[in-house]
Amino acid sequence: MGSSYTVVFQPSGRRGRAAEGEDLLTIARNLGVDIESACGGKGACGKCRVRLEPPGAEDVGAASGSAPLAAVSTPTQAEARLLGLTALAAGMRLACQTQVAGDLVVFVPEESRRAAQVVRKEASDRTVPLDAAIKRYRVALQQPTLEDATPDAERLLSALVTEHGLSGLTLDFTVLQRLPGLLRRAGWNVAVTVWRTGSQAGTIVDVRPGGDSGRLLGLAVDVGTTTIAAYLTDLETGKVVATESAMNPQVAMGDDVISRLYHTTRDPDGLAQLQSTVVQEVNALGARAVERCGAALDDVFDIVAVGNTAMHHLFLGLDVRALGVAPFVAAVRGAVDILASSVGLSFHPGCRLHVLPVEAGFVGADNVAVVIAEEPYKQDEVLLIVDIGTNGELVLGNRLRMLSTSCATGPALEGAHIEFGMRAAPGAIERIRIEPGTLDVRFKVIGLEGWHTDYPAAQVMARGICGSGIIEAAAEMLAAGVILPDGGFDPRLVDLSNERIVVENGRPRKLVIARPEETAIGRAITVSLKDIRSIQLAKGALRAGAEILLSRYGAEKPDRVILAGAFGSYIDPQYALAIGMLPHLESERVVSVGNAAGDGARFALLNLGKRREAAWVALAIEYVELATEPGFQKEYLEAMTFHAGR
Amino acid sequence: MGSSYTVVFQPSGRRGRAAEGEDLLTIARNLGVDIESACGGKGACGKCRVRLEPPGAEDVGAASGSAPLAAVSTPTQAEARLLGLTALAAGMRLACQTQVAGDLVVFVPEESRRAAQVVRKEASDRTVPLDAAIKRYRVALQQPTLEDATPDAERLLSALVTEHGLSGLTLDFTVLQRLPGLLRRAGWNVAVTVWRTGSQAGTIVDVRPGGDSGRLLGLAVDVGTTTIAAYLTDLETGKVVATESAMNPQVAMGDDVISRLYHTTRDPDGLAQLQSTVVQEVNALGARAVERCGAALDDVFDIVAVGNTAMHHLFLGLDVRALGVAPFVAAVRGAVDILASSVGLSFHPGCRLHVLPVEAGFVGADNVAVVIAEEPYKQDEVLLIVDIGTNGELVLGNRLRMLSTSCATGPALEGAHIEFGMRAAPGAIERIRIEPGTLDVRFKVIGLEGWHTDYPAAQVMARGICGSGIIEAAAEMLAAGVILPDGGFDPRLVDLSNERIVVENGRPRKLVIARPEETAIGRAITVSLKDIRSIQLAKGALRAGAEILLSRYGAEKPDRVILAGAFGSYIDPQYALAIGMLPHLESERVVSVGNAAGDGARFALLNLGKRREAAWVALAIEYVELATEPGFQKEYLEAMTFHAGR
Repeated sequence: MGSSYTVVFQPSGRRGRAAEGEDLLTIARNLGVDIESACGGKGACGKCRVRLEPPGAEDVGAASGSAPLAAVSTPTQAEARLLGLTALAAGMRLACQTQVAGDLVVFVPEESRRAAQVVRKEASDRTVPLDAAIKRYRVALQQPTLEDATPDAERLLSALVTEHGLSGLTLDFTVLQRLPGLLRRAGWNVAVTVWRTGSQAGTIVDVRPGGDSGRLLGLAVDVGTTTIAAYLTDLETGKVVATESAMNPQVAMGDDVISRLYHTTRDPDGLAQLQSTVVQEVNALGARAVERCGAALDDVFDIVAVGNTAMHHLFLGLDVRALGVAPFVAAVRGAVDILASSVGLSFHPGCRLHVLPVEAGFVGADNVAVVIAEEPYKQDEVLLIVDIGTNGELVLGNRLRMLSTSCATGPALEGAHIEFGMRAAPGAIERIRIEPGTLDVRFKVIGLEGWHTDYPAAQVMARGICGSGIIEAAAEMLAAGVILPDGGFDPRLVDLSNERIVVENGRPRKLVIARPEETAIGRAITVSLKDIRSIQLAKGALRAGAEILLSRYGAEKPDRVILAGAFGSYIDPQYALAIGMLPHLESERVVSVGNAAGDGARFALLNLGKRREAAWVALAIEYVELATEPGFQKEYLEAMTFHAGR
Repeated sequence: MGSSYTVVFQPSGRRGRAAEGEDLLTIARNLGVDIESACGGKGACGKCRVRLEPPGAEDVGAASGSAPLAAVSTPTQAEARLLGLTALAAGMRLACQTQVAGDLVVFVPEESRRAAQVVRKEASDRTVPLDAAIKRYRVALQQPTLEDATPDAERLLSALVTEHGLSGLTLDFTVLQRLPGLLRRAGWNVAVTVWRTGSQAGTIVDVRPGGDSGRLLGLAVDVGTTTIAAYLTDLETGKVVATESAMNPQVAMGDDVISRLYHTTRDPDGLAQLQSTVVQEVNALGARAVERCGAALDDVFDIVAVGNTAMHHLFLGLDVRALGVAPFVAAVRGAVDILASSVGLSFHPGCRLHVLPVEAGFVGADNVAVVIAEEPYKQDEVLLIVDIGTNGELVLGNRLRMLSTSCATGPALEGAHIEFGMRAAPGAIERIRIEPGTLDVRFKVIGLEGWHTDYPAAQVMARGICGSGIIEAAAEMLAAGVILPDGGFDPRLVDLSNERIVVENGRPRKLVIARPEETAIGRAITVSLKDIRSIQLAKGALRAGAEILLSRYGAEKPDRVILAGAFGSYIDPQYALAIGMLPHLESERVVSVGNAAGDGARFALLNLGKRREAAWVALAIEYVELATEPGFQKEYLEAMTFHAGR
């Protein structure tokens, strides 16, 4: 023995060496990959399901040609019992029961990841009244006779008028082509699936036997720049029946929106590539979700998708040539209603795709989804909705008026342009506390419970700092006097000779957060003056945007702040307030609502009224272009400082 | 020299042997194939264009593997001048200039066939006010700026509202996908093609530069059981710019409707085969028509198709399982509006297909087309419209009321179920005169000018009798006393010992029309007692149907009879009246209108109002089912006799 192998975990991409015979659950934990386990690795709970990826899924070095099954131990009785043979044959295993015997790529499905971490895209429990675009009706038809030889289509349409009051329906042509066979095989008792939009009477998209009519499902999809989340929803109960998420595979063609738009200009097939890769991922997520709840792809009849304007265009394959350059013109603002198959989505042949409208160049369908989920237009309180990604998108308003803007926060709040910045992924430092005086640092790493000080240094394995960690670092450095309100390091720190303070050319320049022995990268993880400047620019842009909206609206501060999106879930409102990123407010008035864009997509899937609201929202929100706003520069400069209470 | 080869002419299918060096025009004439020629074969007029078919187009025997160019002489200077090199390369030749040098299949295009013969499917000169479903609008857009970054689609839609009053338009998704590039390449001056139906606001199907926007064409298609006719029409002028016709290639899978429906039950791919073969033929006709007028396939934006119910279903690929068996239920009655590409038609990607509604199981979209062309519902006169094919379709009525029925005439009137019956094709006897007393017979053969008596017997080359010939034979035999009013041969003919009368078992049984030396088949062409019985059944069914409709309507006779369809063009009204096929009327009140179904399709292409009329007609016409009509049997028996004046 004594051999060791490379094991890569997807979708996090974490990799490490493991000794022969070590089990995948232990290896995962050592690498900070979160895998659910209720029984503590005894093969009893069946929660630590993982999927072995075929060789070549990612290059793992020398043994990349070996079959995955040869690289692990044979399945145990516990696995046969808990997974079943079909799942085993498809490469599913229990991590705690599977010992490594070669190089390996392991995929950790959403359901096996520990709930509170990494990809926080669970559907909320919130819902809306059920009035979906897709509904199913059962009708019993009179069999034709020589006296009544009414054609099949008219016979069906007239029964739907008589029995369900549905007039003016049309039929999808492929349904019409097969209708005579469908009606006769069903013995004239059929379940008819009808798709309606606001403006049309409705279209029959499926006819099947009334008795065995299967599920009626829809998929709400939030296409993020980094993550795609899909919520498979029962259109007859309104319940989410399965949630799946994955990295947006477009990441391979550019981490951020701009580099992906640029990709389409360099490569004539670039747009087609970007579209097909994201659509295939949505197909895969849908297929997994459908499989997980024992349904069929053919049971999915409606898809609602949201995303920022670039993701929206790339998902639909819209020409993006005008989107990446001034004056940043979108191809379309209104909602897009098409056959899902026309962009390559593979569900029921009659499955529709509804993409929510966009507001303006940089305020996309995801923001419209957030607004219809939070409904500021139904409230007296003035809400400030903050959705932070590569850009910060802000909506301010209530039932009287709504304003929106997009702030060029840059990607600092996502951990980019920060020396040790990284995404919120295992190994990322997400919480930081600094002891005034001693400048001792405590931090939390995604993948480890509690503070790092609870673990031996070698087990901490920090890899970088994610957005919430950066914000806490700045706030704590300010509180501990490491930096001054203008963002500069206090020059007097030089005199302290504290090992946490890195001095360059006689000036303090960095604070050590994790010592080399506490990291997986073999050197200290620090926060530098340059990092603090990036944070200042980002939080300044966001704050200035909020102040401009407040002044336009004529309010001094919002009644409530709603933090939307994954970043909003990580961030501690107290720290966001402490660095002045948000208008001054009691911290209990700042709430995080998780993936509100996903909620909005789901609501539009369940309720046609929400689609009408979205159409109205896209037109009703007044978009404020900060670049041309007179007071913006002044506000921006002011908002960059760390004034207490501001 | 001295070699001889097999030459087959399409679409007639006539074949014969020809000596090496003989020219195609001469060979065609010898075989009775009509090819236009104004200069008498001098290579001066360019009217005798034919196309050489690739080997394998039809098996011509031994040399079927040889290339067509090797089987003919090389092109002459006259051909190069009159046809051009492109046409020559595509296999086009002048028949008078081309000498045979091997086995050959030659296609005679519609325009080269002599006008008055064979496939009488020319578009009439009749037209309707122009209000097509497809229209083109020119708009100049304001270029976007930072101050006005309205998305492209909304910019275009709002300009169409402002400049043309077109509100509520939507965009075909493929147009939306390419819109940013289209607008910018066109410099914001565009020609927008809009498709409207009655019920919707309209859809943008094409956006192209405003300056070079090409033609705007539509195709009216009459899909007959035997012949397909296509009228390429300019949607901006309403003029027919090219007419093409061809045999319906489904003939290979069954001559009549019933055998084609049967084919779909025997072969699981039968329906797909039948559909694809007819659609490919329409594509070919469209491509030839487009080429002939120097346009592009991409210029064709709208197609209107008509056909009897079976042709309608087979063209659309609708399940026909219920159409061929009692109670004969169609898949759909209403008009079908779809993307032309969804049935495999290859024109502009946004090209639409409108198929007119059907009335009842056997009264199809072709009949609806005839009715909207003849417009009985706008007239005080009571019209009887007679459309004879495999079934006779009758419409009786005026502005007060319309009745229709379908009579099982059987195919006798098309020349089938008649011993020497054949279609109206070269070699068919189409006119017959019998001298009372001597019983001398004169006849005309399709392909020969004038009476057969003008030619040496060897040049007559009769092959059979077509529908109009059969009717004239019956009428003349009746007038000459060969048959009695009950349809039987006069037994006293035996005593005449006339060589024209064939006696069997002591009874007269046949009349010789063409002597063996006057035929291409080496034996006499006769009309038998059995043939006369078939005619009686057919004309009786038609007449009984007309009488039932008249009695239902409460009229004694119609004010006018309109003979529609190719058969109506061949038939001599006097003879149809003489055998009592039509209600008794002055012969000048019987008019033949040619391909009224094609006219109706063309009108629906040019005018949306005609589509609304068609929808109304399909519902408004009262269909009378003869099988369940109490008086039918009595009428039928009575109508079968040849009573004078009845």
